[in-house]
Amino acid sequence: MDYAYAARLDGLEGNAIRDIFKLLSNPSIISFAGGNPSPSTFEGGVVARITNDIMAASSSTVLQYGQTEGWPPLRESAVPYLRAMGVNASADTILPVSGGQQGVDLMCKAFINPGDTILVESPTFLGALHTMRTYQARIVPVDMDEQGVIPEALDAAMRRERPKLCYLIPTFQNPTGRTLSLERRAAVTELAARRGVVILEDDPYRDLRYHGEPLPPVQSFDKEGAVVYMTSFSKVIAPGLRVGALVAPPGLLRKLTICKQAADVHTAGLTQAIVDGYLRGGLMPAHVNEICALYRTQLDAMLGMFDIFPEGVTHTTPEGGLFVWCELPEGMDALSMLPKACEAGVAYVPGVHFYPHNGRMNTLRLNFSNASVENIKRGMGILNDVIRKELR
Amino acid sequence: MDYAYAARLDGLEGNAIRDIFKLLSNPSIISFAGGNPSPSTFEGGVVARITNDIMAASSSTVLQYGQTEGWPPLRESAVPYLRAMGVNASADTILPVSGGQQGVDLMCKAFINPGDTILVESPTFLGALHTMRTYQARIVPVDMDEQGVIPEALDAAMRRERPKLCYLIPTFQNPTGRTLSLERRAAVTELAARRGVVILEDDPYRDLRYHGEPLPPVQSFDKEGAVVYMTSFSKVIAPGLRVGALVAPPGLLRKLTICKQAADVHTAGLTQAIVDGYLRGGLMPAHVNEICALYRTQLDAMLGMFDIFPEGVTHTTPEGGLFVWCELPEGMDALSMLPKACEAGVAYVPGVHFYPHNGRMNTLRLNFSNASVENIKRGMGILNDVIRKELR
Repeated sequence: MDYAYAARLDGLEGNAIRDIFKLLSNPSIISFAGGNPSPSTFEGGVVARITNDIMAASSSTVLQYGQTEGWPPLRESAVPYLRAMGVNASADTILPVSGGQQGVDLMCKAFINPGDTILVESPTFLGALHTMRTYQARIVPVDMDEQGVIPEALDAAMRRERPKLCYLIPTFQNPTGRTLSLERRAAVTELAARRGVVILEDDPYRDLRYHGEPLPPVQSFDKEGAVVYMTSFSKVIAPGLRVGALVAPPGLLRKLTICKQAADVHTAGLTQAIVDGYLRGGLMPAHVNEICALYRTQLDAMLGMFDIFPEGVTHTTPEGGLFVWCELPEGMDALSMLPKACEAGVAYVPGVHFYPHNGRMNTLRLNFSNASVENIKRGMGILNDVIRKELR
Repeated sequence: MDYAYAARLDGLEGNAIRDIFKLLSNPSIISFAGGNPSPSTFEGGVVARITNDIMAASSSTVLQYGQTEGWPPLRESAVPYLRAMGVNASADTILPVSGGQQGVDLMCKAFINPGDTILVESPTFLGALHTMRTYQARIVPVDMDEQGVIPEALDAAMRRERPKLCYLIPTFQNPTGRTLSLERRAAVTELAARRGVVILEDDPYRDLRYHGEPLPPVQSFDKEGAVVYMTSFSKVIAPGLRVGALVAPPGLLRKLTICKQAADVHTAGLTQAIVDGYLRGGLMPAHVNEICALYRTQLDAMLGMFDIFPEGVTHTTPEGGLFVWCELPEGMDALSMLPKACEAGVAYVPGVHFYPHNGRMNTLRLNFSNASVENIKRGMGILNDVIRKELR
């Protein structure tokens, strides 16, 4: 039978990173592709113990249909966790979601008609771009510099493009690792309120800070309900649990809840309860410290290796997160270089995939969380060789 | 700030059953509302034991980002489970989803442009109607009788309405408990292929048969890729795990996978692995037998109580599932009667909510899985009193 698919699927392909993974079938390749946490940070024993406790105490509610609004204990235990980050949150402004990707989906479902405009940092997280495309959004990139998105560019785009939403990853941005400066955090919030544009602040990397001092979330500057905050437990507990949370004013949260009810009724009770077990059990601070100690050495190892790279190769210097962004000399093509790099034994994601349109071909994203310091050094050495060969 | 929500939210309210639950704040009310499995069927100890095994053996993969296509062991173990039901399935035609609701969502995402038509049984599952409305589908009801949807009516609607999809719950339908006859299963499949309409066969109740012989799924008659099959583990393991599965030809499954990637990346690895533990451990047959033994007595208790009801009250006589459908004498209004019933101590869902438009006011849905035999008898006695009082 011929299927008459919806228009939203026109030209829509799967995530480009998927195709890269096919190049990685050789397990000896050192992968700086993907954005996976190190499996050594997963605490299988803790998850098992918490599950045993939950099943002994509350199996009849955790395994039953739950409220779309979320597992009530998690909505409560998330409050002090979020407030400690500087987020303005109370139990009735928190909606647990099935991972950050669902948060982006629900925001699009609530706001985006086909053709409506979403402003994004350029470059930005390709998974969010994929979701926006399924809503036939018009995606407009806004320039960044080392301090994150440029407020003057954002204001101009808000006036010119009349966007509904603005999607920002202000802290340790994916893919660049950049962090929006304190002054700009206040400025973009003020702009959003003035121009009537809702900001979705996607903040999954906040806890992963290895150097410098934390900055308050954009949402903490918001007095007008212009900022929806999103956290995720994927990077600090485990992505396989698929638990994150949206924080929004109650009226807007009600709309997001109606959307979520149609999408998956509610996030699994067990995975919500496991996250609640981490928060309520006070396990997060020590666990986050361990993760940060590990990733700090890996980030530093990666950054240190840039010394051997040829002149004209530049890179960001993130204070946290999972990614370093690298620019090759103008005219180089990181996309066509990738098969050669994989052949030589190292993988990355070509930066072009992170631009909504007309991506810069000489850019690439490097992940440092999922390789040992030794492999990071080896892989960066190989990458240096590959780049130098291309330059000849 | 004033929010400019998307058009798909216009007039969209939350699930009507939610509001009914507010009437149920008094815990002494006997509830025939909802569609919850009995918590006595949840096996907290088994879930804990399986989780311990998974965490010992595969925490680094189950807790990591997984493939959108599903946890590979579950795609394999679901094959014999589905084949034993008569479903044509292989590992590459199965997509685990985050509960059946997500299956409806993904089918709408893949097929429905605003204004596209979906045929549904009249009445049908209100949660599915809610999801269809978020895609601004034009929902067209098709008449049923005691044998399920009427093929002649379906054919006429397919010719007249040019639908993209047809949503059917052929076995122990929600809300009526009716089962599509064998002859009609073949007939509707043939119609779908001939008219180029994709059927979504939603089949979460198949295992819950208390009387009579199983019928093959509609999908088993399909040679043209006209039927997408959906199962759910909500009723036979636990709804709180949020795991179901779609079965579709590989090309269509790829489109559904691209949609799912944008919706939630993948269903939680842990909950998929728990379902896999049930299937692989051979736990399902005995567990399903236990559930059926329990629900059989509850169904029989409910049906038996209709003897005392006033003349003119009719009801379906399901051989399985979770629901009995009841019609009061013409002119009665089950919606306005509900607060009085709750006051008297019994709750149900007014049937009007299960019709896409112009619902029949004299109908109601009764759930028998979540009340003891004693409470079923007491609750039906109260309901009889309430109806008789209304009739005066």
